[in-house]
Amino acid sequence: MAEVIYPRMAVIGCGLIGSSVIRAVRRAGVVETIVVADASSAVRDRVAELGFADEVTGSVADAVKDADLVVLAVPVLAMEAVAKAAAGSLKAGATVTDVGSVKGQVSEALARNLPDSVFIVPGHPIAGTEQSGPDAGFAELFDKRWTILTPLPRQDDPYLEAVQQLADFWTALGANVDRMDDKHHDLVLAVTSHLPHLIAYNIVGTAADLEEVARAEVMKYSAGGFRDFTRIAASDPTMWRDIFLANKDAVLEILGRFTEDLQALSRAIRWGEGDKLFELFSRTREIRRGVIAAGQESPEPNFGRDRERH
Amino acid sequence: MAEVIYPRMAVIGCGLIGSSVIRAVRRAGVVETIVVADASSAVRDRVAELGFADEVTGSVADAVKDADLVVLAVPVLAMEAVAKAAAGSLKAGATVTDVGSVKGQVSEALARNLPDSVFIVPGHPIAGTEQSGPDAGFAELFDKRWTILTPLPRQDDPYLEAVQQLADFWTALGANVDRMDDKHHDLVLAVTSHLPHLIAYNIVGTAADLEEVARAEVMKYSAGGFRDFTRIAASDPTMWRDIFLANKDAVLEILGRFTEDLQALSRAIRWGEGDKLFELFSRTREIRRGVIAAGQESPEPNFGRDRERH
Ligand SMILES: NC(=O)c1ccc[n+]([C@@H]2O[C@H](COP(=O)([O-])OP(=O)(O)OC[C@H]3O[C@@H](n4cnc5c(N)ncnc54)[C@H](OP(=O)(O)O)[C@@H]3O)[C@@H](O)[C@H]2O)c1
Ligand SMILES: NC(=O)c1ccc[n+]([C@@H]2O[C@H](COP(=O)([O-])OP(=O)(O)OC[C@H]3O[C@@H](n4cnc5c(N)ncnc54)[C@H](OP(=O)(O)O)[C@@H]3O)[C@@H](O)[C@H]2O)c1
Repeated sequence: MAEVIYPRMAVIGCGLIGSSVIRAVRRAGVVETIVVADASSAVRDRVAELGFADEVTGSVADAVKDADLVVLAVPVLAMEAVAKAAAGSLKAGATVTDVGSVKGQVSEALARNLPDSVFIVPGHPIAGTEQSGPDAGFAELFDKRWTILTPLPRQDDPYLEAVQQLADFWTALGANVDRMDDKHHDLVLAVTSHLPHLIAYNIVGTAADLEEVARAEVMKYSAGGFRDFTRIAASDPTMWRDIFLANKDAVLEILGRFTEDLQALSRAIRWGEGDKLFELFSRTREIRRGVIAAGQESPEPNFGRDRERH
Repeated sequence: MAEVIYPRMAVIGCGLIGSSVIRAVRRAGVVETIVVADASSAVRDRVAELGFADEVTGSVADAVKDADLVVLAVPVLAMEAVAKAAAGSLKAGATVTDVGSVKGQVSEALARNLPDSVFIVPGHPIAGTEQSGPDAGFAELFDKRWTILTPLPRQDDPYLEAVQQLADFWTALGANVDRMDDKHHDLVLAVTSHLPHLIAYNIVGTAADLEEVARAEVMKYSAGGFRDFTRIAASDPTMWRDIFLANKDAVLEILGRFTEDLQALSRAIRWGEGDKLFELFSRTREIRRGVIAAGQESPEPNFGRDRERH
């Protein structure tokens, strides 16, 4: 039996990430009692059916009462409302964290609304799928993936201990844990997650709107690359709207670089500069090797998608 | 035992696609004798070791002699040189096809260089992986994927029979077969394959060049979307250089649409227009469903990449 890190945990928002946290916590045995609050009655009913929570409620205030750890797992722009709803009921000395994909704005929203008596330690697990809701979660989601904590600029011992405890919690859930400044987090994720999603949404939108090529053709002949983008562009619209609005500056900055590079690439094609193309296409292969070496990807061709076919 | 469609087949270029064609042919039993020609002595040695060909040679002219079907499986811009090398040795009545990812320019190169005594039927299997070389191929690669034939504008019976015979051949290899005008093919593929590759190469290049975010960070935190792009951007540089040069006009046209749409999306983010973002992000989900319904993709989250993890 593993050691209990937090006797009582409240999870606010029990979708893909919230329910995966709970399943991973059950697997690890690091929490005794789990309370869920979710705004959606359909989600609450389903969570009750799935049976992984000890209590399910529609009230954030009720859920957080007596909790040692509160995990906010709602869309980024819903964090502030949830923080407000929780603020008056939090136990002194509790740790409040979140799993939002943007950290600067969420961090400010939490600091603005929560009492000084709690430890605010924002966080973000870099793991997910294109699906949402409590049925989409699984205990292994965070295994070998990184969770980034972006602690506030506080150096007092109780706070540092709370941060370490949360790091131990994520380690118990299977994750590797890193700490980072929240602004840097938002820039790194703009590159590794937000821009890829923006581009994928855009390319799928462009393809859907073309008059010269029918949608049916786009779907039929998608195995040449396009289908990869449709996966990303099937992610939850609310979650992604919130991310782009909350991380606007970093996203627009990285998008600016991307657009400049794309113009140069477009010129190289127009002028038939094969060597420039070849040089770029050779360079990018190294990054793939690095991603695989970093344990963040399957080395199998087509992501192992053809595994059952041969 | 299946019926033999072509007693003797020559495959010129025995990489991912050429070797997959041979493996699928062996599985289907539709050819008696298989001859391979490849420019690379390392590839020839490896093909001899793998043992799936009856003869292996460095000479295109020797390989095509007496062949009933000649399959050109070299990079797009190498097709013309191979056609020239083959021209003098082809048997009258033979069918010459190719698997190149661009059809207009390849079709012209073949028509310009091959004798009237052969049937030229350009083709393109929409199936592949990011790997190359004879070890990367497998017999199931074409199963349930589309192969597009782009016949010349000839309506004589012998030609139409040759086209039908080639369609039967691809069906025997497991593929669905479509026929299309070569210019339309090049536009459709610019959307479903060439633009996705261009964008993936570009985004990986942008990420690699950033000064504010270290490459190691990009690799570590790639599971939030970026890793999908690195797969595509690890494809063969020669193959892709050739594709962009040979399909320049269609690629630049589709890239222009993409860029316009991206500017609109960028403005929506800048001005905080959440509804516009939400509308696009909802619309793109349908395309994913269509791709899955068309049998071109696994419905599993993360492409089933996490299959062994839970
Ligand atoms: N999905 C990923 O890949 C991923 C990865 C890392 C981090 N994240 C972050 O994790 C968070 C949750 O994402 P998710 O994918 O788990 O989303 P999800 O599956 O859609 O779950 C979110 C849940 O929160 C509920 N909710 C929304 N507003 C609420 C409120 N004010 N009070 C209580 N419950 C509320 C939602 O109910 P309704 O359905 O009624 O709205 C839903 O059940 C987001 O901040 C996201 O940025 C996601
Ligand atoms: N990869 C895909 O996903 C995919 C999908 C559909 C269609 N295609 C098309 O299929 C064709 C082959 O692609 P691939 O992925 O199979 O490439 P590949 O694995 O790199 O194999 C190509 C082979 O052709 C050889 N070759 C090059 N020039 C030659 C010449 N002049 N004479 C004889 N052999 C020559 C190469 O030798 P060297 O190594 O010495 O150059 C190599 O062994 C391309 O036209 C491509 O557009 C590819």
